[in-house]
Amino acid sequence: MTITHTTVAAGPVVPSTGALRPLPLGDLRLTGGYWADWQQRNADTVIRHCETWMERIGWTGNFDAAATGEPFDHAGIEFVDSEVYKLLEAMAWQLGVQPDDDLAERYDRLVERVAGAQDADGYLHTSFGRPWQRPRWSDMEWGHELYSMGHLIQAAVARLRTAGGGRLVDVAVRLADHLVEVFGTDGREAVCGHPEIEPALVELGRATGDRRYVDLARTFVDRRGHGLLAPIEYGQEYFQDDVPVRDADVLRGHAVRALYLAAGAVDVAVETGDADLLRAVETQWANTVAKRTYLTGAMGAHHQDEAFGADFELPPDREYGETCAAIASNMLSWRLLLETGESKYADLIERTLYNAVMVAPREDGRAFFYANTMHQRVEGTVPPEDEVVRRALSSLRAPWFEVSCCPTNLSRTLANVQSVFATVSDDGLQLHQYGDYEVDTVVGDGTRAAFSVRSDWPYSGTVEVVATADSKGPVALRLRVPCWSSGATLDVVDQAVPVEGDTVTVTRSFTAGDRVVLDVPVRARVTVPDVRIDAVRGTVAVERGPLVYALESTDLGADVRDVTVPADAEPVDGGSDDVRIAVRVHAVPEPTSLPYREGAGPADRASSAQPAESRTVRLVPYASWGNRGPSTMRVFIPVE
Amino acid sequence: MTITHTTVAAGPVVPSTGALRPLPLGDLRLTGGYWADWQQRNADTVIRHCETWMERIGWTGNFDAAATGEPFDHAGIEFVDSEVYKLLEAMAWQLGVQPDDDLAERYDRLVERVAGAQDADGYLHTSFGRPWQRPRWSDMEWGHELYSMGHLIQAAVARLRTAGGGRLVDVAVRLADHLVEVFGTDGREAVCGHPEIEPALVELGRATGDRRYVDLARTFVDRRGHGLLAPIEYGQEYFQDDVPVRDADVLRGHAVRALYLAAGAVDVAVETGDADLLRAVETQWANTVAKRTYLTGAMGAHHQDEAFGADFELPPDREYGETCAAIASNMLSWRLLLETGESKYADLIERTLYNAVMVAPREDGRAFFYANTMHQRVEGTVPPEDEVVRRALSSLRAPWFEVSCCPTNLSRTLANVQSVFATVSDDGLQLHQYGDYEVDTVVGDGTRAAFSVRSDWPYSGTVEVVATADSKGPVALRLRVPCWSSGATLDVVDQAVPVEGDTVTVTRSFTAGDRVVLDVPVRARVTVPDVRIDAVRGTVAVERGPLVYALESTDLGADVRDVTVPADAEPVDGGSDDVRIAVRVHAVPEPTSLPYREGAGPADRASSAQPAESRTVRLVPYASWGNRGPSTMRVFIPVE
Repeated sequence: MTITHTTVAAGPVVPSTGALRPLPLGDLRLTGGYWADWQQRNADTVIRHCETWMERIGWTGNFDAAATGEPFDHAGIEFVDSEVYKLLEAMAWQLGVQPDDDLAERYDRLVERVAGAQDADGYLHTSFGRPWQRPRWSDMEWGHELYSMGHLIQAAVARLRTAGGGRLVDVAVRLADHLVEVFGTDGREAVCGHPEIEPALVELGRATGDRRYVDLARTFVDRRGHGLLAPIEYGQEYFQDDVPVRDADVLRGHAVRALYLAAGAVDVAVETGDADLLRAVETQWANTVAKRTYLTGAMGAHHQDEAFGADFELPPDREYGETCAAIASNMLSWRLLLETGESKYADLIERTLYNAVMVAPREDGRAFFYANTMHQRVEGTVPPEDEVVRRALSSLRAPWFEVSCCPTNLSRTLANVQSVFATVSDDGLQLHQYGDYEVDTVVGDGTRAAFSVRSDWPYSGTVEVVATADSKGPVALRLRVPCWSSGATLDVVDQAVPVEGDTVTVTRSFTAGDRVVLDVPVRARVTVPDVRIDAVRGTVAVERGPLVYALESTDLGADVRDVTVPADAEPVDGGSDDVRIAVRVHAVPEPTSLPYREGAGPADRASSAQPAESRTVRLVPYASWGNRGPSTMRVFIPVE
Repeated sequence: MTITHTTVAAGPVVPSTGALRPLPLGDLRLTGGYWADWQQRNADTVIRHCETWMERIGWTGNFDAAATGEPFDHAGIEFVDSEVYKLLEAMAWQLGVQPDDDLAERYDRLVERVAGAQDADGYLHTSFGRPWQRPRWSDMEWGHELYSMGHLIQAAVARLRTAGGGRLVDVAVRLADHLVEVFGTDGREAVCGHPEIEPALVELGRATGDRRYVDLARTFVDRRGHGLLAPIEYGQEYFQDDVPVRDADVLRGHAVRALYLAAGAVDVAVETGDADLLRAVETQWANTVAKRTYLTGAMGAHHQDEAFGADFELPPDREYGETCAAIASNMLSWRLLLETGESKYADLIERTLYNAVMVAPREDGRAFFYANTMHQRVEGTVPPEDEVVRRALSSLRAPWFEVSCCPTNLSRTLANVQSVFATVSDDGLQLHQYGDYEVDTVVGDGTRAAFSVRSDWPYSGTVEVVATADSKGPVALRLRVPCWSSGATLDVVDQAVPVEGDTVTVTRSFTAGDRVVLDVPVRARVTVPDVRIDAVRGTVAVERGPLVYALESTDLGADVRDVTVPADAEPVDGGSDDVRIAVRVHAVPEPTSLPYREGAGPADRASSAQPAESRTVRLVPYASWGNRGPSTMRVFIPVE
């Protein structure tokens, strides 16, 4: 089923065709629970936190200095403009969700400062192009010029979609026009080392109706993989310049770059009807999920080059799992969900959101992980609350980083998180994510779909959907049945609907008060990694609903190093905050020579019998780990 | 037992006290076999290969350009001087082992070029200090000035010990005098980001008898760990500036830096009678070997910071295992062996040499690994023979690298490899490493110890030691019994000597022709990793004698990914080049969704029964892998 629709005020990503349509942002309102709480914390705390830090260390000041025309010492690395833009995007979405005079004023002031730094021809970057700086476009590999500009454009699209226009939109359009001139068909044949401009330009094209931006995005996608970027130490796959996008069958290289590019490629494919390109990215998604994705949904195994590793190279201790890569993964999955309507994309969004993304912020929203390990071997130290931390040192969440892409990326994600909860099609409404929210939207040619959704998701599996208005026409209400569930049931007023497969649909003319209840059994369960993931052979993890659980030394009262679970251990489920498992804590003597020994026979190859203490220990949701001070932690626990 | 002796012409490392004394280099002569072959290949090929490459890409030319006093574009990164110095050190040792007019002439010419770049005050570095360059000592963290100078001094010590002096020795002494002035007690309170100057200065002090150099080395060791280096992204442990040397209990941070520093600390401790410092390094060695060392002896798990990881963080696929770190590990072990006489240090030297060091060179000596993996997941590509390769791309051995510390380090190691084979004490001769060689030296006050040693080590465990002259006095002939052996026997002319413990000693007045045979059973054996090494849980490796073995796809005829060994598998030993093991190659279907599945019960948690093909496959010595073109490879094989 493919539908065509016009651009409407909406959240991020508004394709002109696709199996499903995003809702106008105002048509879905969070009313409580997990996401409303976090969105409020974002509005109250995270946004201000980002503003304060960037003001304090001069990243916003760069724009003021640039506006003067006088030489200045640029604060921070060359792409810190992009953090200001991501913050502006977060503010714009937040203002779209919930008017706030104070925030609106801060937003306007910040936009003015950014606008002041724009050159007469539309170019805007505080690190390049002034007489005392490096020339424009002189470092396509590492300069991040188009990358930063892409984030400006995204921020402007957010404003255009939520406020209809404004100063930042004008700035972005002037900038984009300049880029069309510089990099368009007859222009400079180049791509940026860090993709991001691609989805940004398509989105601007969608939001403004100006086709030239889509064309330029397509040009950038097409140029990639043809060796336009100079060779670097990590190889050209680092910035996906090794293979043309349409010829690759898996994501590779720097994870954030790969995922932003793939998202942009889907946007281009959708807007240009490029089925081959679309299929290529679908294949890349499938192979990446099957072979290069952590249990939490996190992507990217390498610290060195922030990259995907080889297939099944998924070490939990040296996991990189950058927060931004998880966010980027959802950007890609959301686009593929809209295009194809396939539930598997919503499944990955759920897993990634609750685990790989939400592990990043500290409970108070004032500190963040940049990289996200699934196995903390050594108790970390608490980073100072008032210092900029280097990203490689992430033993516990830090308030700010020298490269601080993750806090602002998280902030813009939280500000519009409900945009991925539901979609519409010509005949129905699809609920992809659950929680407490109200939907009131239009299906097809005018049928009203108004529902109240109530659920204590991710802690409980009961989802109550009540019609809040008469639909006055048939609505196919489709609910996702999560891939991790079994035995889900659906209770409908006067209808028995069997639950099989990954969605369940109730089609009827709804009357206000009609009640549909999806009941997904949520029990702690044991999960076994694929035998090819060498780094976690012989271990199990525990999950409950969409949440991955972790064992912390805080609860164990011992280092998680010397712990095993019995082969037949089953978790004891006393509720989401009372998941327990039987473990044995071994008193393994410290080795005194090389940690390898001769194994004469099979018996000797089993772990030798050591004194062990049996106990039952509480596990915590992985996203919550590290909120109680330094600890050692592991998700995958060795089986005895 | 501690003895005192005077400096003599010798190999590297001549402590003024210690349990054991190194032999004068000429007192032990390789006559054939593994090491004579490789030393000859070093003389014929590796040294010339290094000369050619450094000439071609301008690293030697930097000295000519610097000598002119005119501005020039410095070729290579800032510490490439050190590669020229390591090559000079290799040449000096090689000339000491085997005179060669052509090599001598090339050596002299190269020394002249280096000497020409020395400043009037003794300073010598081609990257710093000229008006158009960065000022001297302006980047102690990354400038590598003292590091490079340390290698110059080591090269000069090699010449002093093998030729009694010369132009490079004069250059080094002027340089060292300058350093005493700049960094001595009343001088600049600083240390170099990369240790190396410490062992170099002690060795120069030993070789010249000038105590000031030892004192300066002690000053550098004492200053370290007090935060003299500016904070960096990887944390101060990266350059061991986190904790004073004498307070640390394990090696940490950048592996080569940590090991060079530890070697220098032993040198300082020995020369200053600092028992506390010595004990600290002994403890660091013991903990590092027990918890942070690979089966091959390789050290350093992290690619990102070329660093040791946490205890038991020893992933085989993301092993860094830099060749230079293995060489540095032997520098440390050799010093501790001389000081303590303990056989465990010789055991690690053996393991490291045959596996972690000798995996680096390609069989023809014209290409090298920089990092050494124990698990190659993806077939690499053959690097071009005529291009400089970036070190991160080491899927197969490359001819040269942008940072090319390993080829020259290997060359200087091969040029004096026999220096670690034997030692003397007041009453005897100790044989630590085996092979084909002749020893003719003096024990104690003048007893002659002349022996011919014959062994096909590392392939066979029979070592025949025949006296080649009357000793005319009692000699305690001590032979190492390797830690990996069991059931070794000793056959002596007229004496039954039980073999127990890690050495066996025959004390007698030897008559020419007296024959002692150590027979160490060498059989392929299975080795099991410690349960705490998460990355290789549930696997075994195969070793034979001192050699670690590897499974290559070349022999398997399939990717090594999907292979297991039966729980009771024993290797079949048909000789060192015919080690085989039974494996099962599984036809595991490619996953189609996330590579984790629900495990309902213990049975389900075992690897599910998949069609598998049983076969017996040949393993190759790990050091030989990758010599037959691209392959996948693993040392640790999963147990069924």
